Amino acid sequence: MLTRSIYTEEHHQFRESVQRMYARELQPYVEQWETEGIVSRDFWRACGDNGMLLPDIPEQYGGCGLDFKFNAIILEETALAGTTGPAFGVHNDIVAHYINNYGSEAVKQHWLPRMATGEAIGAICMSEPGTGSDLKNIRTRATPVDGGYVLNGSKTFITNGINADVAVIAARVGDDSGARSISLFVCGCDQPGFTKGRKLDKVGNRSSDTAELFFEDLFIPTENLLGKQGEGFIYMMKELPQERLSIAISCQAAAQHAYDIAVAYVKERQAFGKAVFDFQNTRFVLANIKTQLQVGWQHLDACIQALVNKQLSTDEAAAAKLWHSELRCKVVDDCLQLFGGYGYIEEYEIARLWRDARVMRLYGGTSEIMKDLISRSI
Amino acid sequence: MLTRSIYTEEHHQFRESVQRMYARELQPYVEQWETEGIVSRDFWRACGDNGMLLPDIPEQYGGCGLDFKFNAIILEETALAGTTGPAFGVHNDIVAHYINNYGSEAVKQHWLPRMATGEAIGAICMSEPGTGSDLKNIRTRATPVDGGYVLNGSKTFITNGINADVAVIAARVGDDSGARSISLFVCGCDQPGFTKGRKLDKVGNRSSDTAELFFEDLFIPTENLLGKQGEGFIYMMKELPQERLSIAISCQAAAQHAYDIAVAYVKERQAFGKAVFDFQNTRFVLANIKTQLQVGWQHLDACIQALVNKQLSTDEAAAAKLWHSELRCKVVDDCLQLFGGYGYIEEYEIARLWRDARVMRLYGGTSEIMKDLISRSI
Amino acid sequence: MLTRSIYTEEHHQFRESVQRMYARELQPYVEQWETEGIVSRDFWRACGDNGMLLPDIPEQYGGCGLDFKFNAIILEETALAGTTGPAFGVHNDIVAHYINNYGSEAVKQHWLPRMATGEAIGAICMSEPGTGSDLKNIRTRATPVDGGYVLNGSKTFITNGINADVAVIAARVGDDSGARSISLFVCGCDQPGFTKGRKLDKVGNRSSDTAELFFEDLFIPTENLLGKQGEGFIYMMKELPQERLSIAISCQAAAQHAYDIAVAYVKERQAFGKAVFDFQNTRFVLANIKTQLQVGWQHLDACIQALVNKQLSTDEAAAAKLWHSELRCKVVDDCLQLFGGYGYIEEYEIARLWRDARVMRLYGGTSEIMKDLISRSI
Amino acid sequence: MLTRSIYTEEHHQFRESVQRMYARELQPYVEQWETEGIVSRDFWRACGDNGMLLPDIPEQYGGCGLDFKFNAIILEETALAGTTGPAFGVHNDIVAHYINNYGSEAVKQHWLPRMATGEAIGAICMSEPGTGSDLKNIRTRATPVDGGYVLNGSKTFITNGINADVAVIAARVGDDSGARSISLFVCGCDQPGFTKGRKLDKVGNRSSDTAELFFEDLFIPTENLLGKQGEGFIYMMKELPQERLSIAISCQAAAQHAYDIAVAYVKERQAFGKAVFDFQNTRFVLANIKTQLQVGWQHLDACIQALVNKQLSTDEAAAAKLWHSELRCKVVDDCLQLFGGYGYIEEYEIARLWRDARVMRLYGGTSEIMKDLISRSI
Repeated sequence: MLTRSIYTEEHHQFRESVQRMYARELQPYVEQWETEGIVSRDFWRACGDNGMLLPDIPEQYGGCGLDFKFNAIILEETALAGTTGPAFGVHNDIVAHYINNYGSEAVKQHWLPRMATGEAIGAICMSEPGTGSDLKNIRTRATPVDGGYVLNGSKTFITNGINADVAVIAARVGDDSGARSISLFVCGCDQPGFTKGRKLDKVGNRSSDTAELFFEDLFIPTENLLGKQGEGFIYMMKELPQERLSIAISCQAAAQHAYDIAVAYVKERQAFGKAVFDFQNTRFVLANIKTQLQVGWQHLDACIQALVNKQLSTDEAAAAKLWHSELRCKVVDDCLQLFGGYGYIEEYEIARLWRDARVMRLYGGTSEIMKDLISRSI
Repeated sequence: MLTRSIYTEEHHQFRESVQRMYARELQPYVEQWETEGIVSRDFWRACGDNGMLLPDIPEQYGGCGLDFKFNAIILEETALAGTTGPAFGVHNDIVAHYINNYGSEAVKQHWLPRMATGEAIGAICMSEPGTGSDLKNIRTRATPVDGGYVLNGSKTFITNGINADVAVIAARVGDDSGARSISLFVCGCDQPGFTKGRKLDKVGNRSSDTAELFFEDLFIPTENLLGKQGEGFIYMMKELPQERLSIAISCQAAAQHAYDIAVAYVKERQAFGKAVFDFQNTRFVLANIKTQLQVGWQHLDACIQALVNKQLSTDEAAAAKLWHSELRCKVVDDCLQLFGGYGYIEEYEIARLWRDARVMRLYGGTSEIMKDLISRSI
Repeated sequence: MLTRSIYTEEHHQFRESVQRMYARELQPYVEQWETEGIVSRDFWRACGDNGMLLPDIPEQYGGCGLDFKFNAIILEETALAGTTGPAFGVHNDIVAHYINNYGSEAVKQHWLPRMATGEAIGAICMSEPGTGSDLKNIRTRATPVDGGYVLNGSKTFITNGINADVAVIAARVGDDSGARSISLFVCGCDQPGFTKGRKLDKVGNRSSDTAELFFEDLFIPTENLLGKQGEGFIYMMKELPQERLSIAISCQAAAQHAYDIAVAYVKERQAFGKAVFDFQNTRFVLANIKTQLQVGWQHLDACIQALVNKQLSTDEAAAAKLWHSELRCKVVDDCLQLFGGYGYIEEYEIARLWRDARVMRLYGGTSEIMKDLISRSI
Repeated sequence: MLTRSIYTEEHHQFRESVQRMYARELQPYVEQWETEGIVSRDFWRACGDNGMLLPDIPEQYGGCGLDFKFNAIILEETALAGTTGPAFGVHNDIVAHYINNYGSEAVKQHWLPRMATGEAIGAICMSEPGTGSDLKNIRTRATPVDGGYVLNGSKTFITNGINADVAVIAARVGDDSGARSISLFVCGCDQPGFTKGRKLDKVGNRSSDTAELFFEDLFIPTENLLGKQGEGFIYMMKELPQERLSIAISCQAAAQHAYDIAVAYVKERQAFGKAVFDFQNTRFVLANIKTQLQVGWQHLDACIQALVNKQLSTDEAAAAKLWHSELRCKVVDDCLQLFGGYGYIEEYEIARLWRDARVMRLYGGTSEIMKDLISRSI
């Protein structure tokens, strides 16, 4: 596999510290989180204690003041540890960025330090029942009132929906349809009128709590408006590349992890008098995956570098999300097959990895939405 | 879709009776069986009461004395009803056939009538931990003793493993390795030395109880030997085409069912101001699936007819199992994608169908085993 | 491979006679036709002499008075002989059918006997530069004049364009756009105003002469109008299933032929100390192709039988054309790969088969047009 | 598309000079070379005059003394100009490197300056009839004689086989089979006993002259032995990464070129009342290709940089060759389809690009050989 070239010695040290922390605080709990359908808040706190939250947020707000590559390392190591349960992408790469980039000073000072310690977990509230990826069609309404807004509506598919302490919410102000009346708001999840619905029962990614949320006359003070009223859609378009790259990073690392455990399995497992690895079909399947992984890592690194350089465009990020999510699904499916019947048994990790992967072509915009976005750049 | 031509009016009437019975006795219980991880014995009894068990076994043994097309109709309608939980393929198409074709008169008279009423549920015990599809490498040992054999060993991936009342077991007599020392035995599952292990936790197909079985000094009387000692492998080779065609039938019907619910969904679901069906991508994806289904039904019917004519060879059946199982997996995956994020939520049937499908490329011989078998005929 | 069941003893005898005739009159000339870019008229005459033209046209018009299965046998044997150069599909299955189904008695008596002997070769003139598969947008204009029509316009991609003696031409009468002003005409190709343009230089299928045609004040007498004025589009919709099934038949047989020669090659060819066939990858690739072929033949036969029963719908025929043309392209590509570098050298037949196949996803309506048609039936 | 980051200003200027030179000296002659089956020697001379030959060979031997990125630019621009006819990969990246890395001073001083001016064109002679990719099985024999060796044997699939003035030849010294008796020799193609056979008629890549070569008692003086006797196989293993990366570079650029002309075509071409580009299927197909190209360029650049850093391993280069050649074939096939029937007509460039691409999965080691190599690193 080609050497990756974007990481410095400082990054490598950080990666090792994450690996050590995960061996202690994550690996032993993955099965428990899967069963409970949620990651423990203790783990989030421990991540905060170990300087793993908000890597690229300025130190004055409790962040680490580093670059996005540290965010990437966390995403990679989480997937390499066999889970994408703790939704660091949402917390570090999305919610913290909306608040840091568009929040008032008061909002930043209130929420970012809490998010950095893991005291507050973030959620991003875009999707609604009936809208899906069609963000221009959001129906949650924010009615201007004295001193702020009152929100009514509902959201669905909200990652961290149960654990969340702070939410960034997209809502429509005024009667205009379309993108120009959408605004973004920050809101504590314990506010009156903010109700967490049931946790959704998903095919996979079960450590990650996904929920419906309901807003009934939810008051949000003016200072909690992100940026300017009516510019929410513009902000989302600006932040989506980072969100999609986060997904791409998780996908690439998760595919690598599936490959790693499949290689170990087929070298050990005997069939028809030899190691499964020694069949030409096995070797060709793995050679093809190894090739895709080599190609993927180099592309991913170029995207990460471009993001750090503030040069990753919407269509480039969409291409990354599309490619790496398709890769992950294909790779885990091929790897599962190498386990034979055992691949279908939940006690084998590959079974869960297979279920986990499928969501990647659906959330953060489906593959079809990605293709539509990319085609607009042609 | 091209008209199917292998079924007569009598078959159509039987199909309708199955559909009516399923509306009453199957559809309302699918979710419950999924949760409990097992199909209720009441349902098996009800199937017996409705003349749906052992369709092609002679009436003198309690069967219906019909042809295999009636077996096929049951498999089709079960999958079209959204489940492959009740393992009729194993019971009707495999276990009953081994007993009917190779069993002593006493064995036939004892077990077949009970299987026909649903009082006794059948299981086939081939796979072992460590052997998988490599049947020549079976290690369960049958030691000849006075009046019969004593079996020691264990099996895994046994469909109906918990519900089973009667088992056909492959075991090795003597010290020779290879195929020629394998024999088949019939055994009641309540015999001393026959232990049912834990129910395996599977990615899907959860209504179907899959288990490990253990044999410790399990005595089997001579009359329970199927056919001749040492010819077990030959019998398995003879019966496998029927087993594999059963799987192919289920796969084709399950793919059709996924297509049917996807079509209904995309015609109803709106996005970006129109029905999801009205996007060219959706229409092309569905057109491709419809094409595959058309091709598949005609091929399947030719296979069913060949089996009825006793002309379906090992490699032809392997090709059917390979093709239709790959079809099912591809179709449910494409269909799930059309549901967007909802496809990943368990309350949508497509989510379960997607999990259910994956085993089809693994059991009854993996796709790789099928390719190996087919290649031997080239 | 499953036995095909639609052919009777009479069909088998006909097939053998075609095979004998091809060994004598076709096989020795394939390379010559490829080089010259056209099939010799002598061969067409020989086919006429051997009762191979117009199989399913009534004997009173010189045809054989048989069923379409005889047409199918000719298509199959031609492709199995390694060429799809002689465009029997166009002559037998399309042009003769338009004339027989919609022609005036005079037209039928004039042209069909000549087409049956091979004296007259038929062409169908639909595609135009700029319209492609969009038949409703035909621009060739037929202006009513005393005693008939005068045609002006041009056609392209016309199979048999150089050899043709008789053409069925789609043209627009009147100023209305759309389908309802399209009419069909029969015309001898030696008429004043009928000009054959250059032979198109194609990637493959080079034995088949494809040309542009130009009509300048081409007079066509009223009796040469097919059916009623303005109903041409309806007739085309009725005849297209047969045309598309013809293509599907050729594709299936051509795929079979590529497989046959690849199997022979890899069993002979040695590499790394053993036959190429003995590598697992080779065996798996061929097993997959054999599976597809088995599935394809059974589907094809069901389509042929449906056509004979007058029950093959537009979308079913489109599905057949789509599936079998995709199959052919995939199979020849996989087979070529098994030849290694030799597959790219023209003296190996597989090289030509690979070039020949590609047109199948383009003509008779592209794969995209097929999907569009199929989707209309969902 | 993500910005490429490996090229400096000096590289960009060189690229522009190549583009200007190609507009003048290459573009107008592509069709002529295709027809004649060979690139004119004048063009090679012109390339020499413009400093485009032997970019990374030291200036003391007439080279440009630059890095391999200049070689890469030439490969890219050639493919982007619509041809891979002039086999610069063989001349610049392979033959010149063998001579420079392993040649005696006399050999280097004799041949490299001539290769730099285009006076001498290089060929590499490995493949033999019957050996294909199995290089250890080479049968051409070099018998030691006074003052050198006498070669007897034959080679096939030799790129530049007709144009060649200087050849690097792999031959076996002694009776041992296997890799350890293979040596490499440099030889002028006008020597007695060196016979050029017929030019092979290929499916595509027709500008490139591929030939058989025959050696009959061909005397080669000792100083023309490359490196040490018996180490030829080791040298080949060392040089193959560069050869395979050359192919990967050509493939990536050729895929980009096919995409570019397809985009231009579908934006211009109208069907069913709108531009072909405006159909969702077209946009999705192109979005997928654009994604693959984005991924591919970044991977390619990482490989080029690794090669320049002398860090590209055998399996990494094999993965690059595999991935980019598969990409090229898939992309040109998808692009051709977007042209409809015109894609099959030779006057449309896409038709030739499609024929040209297919060899890439065959030469320089087939895809299967690549997978085998990669699997050895797992």
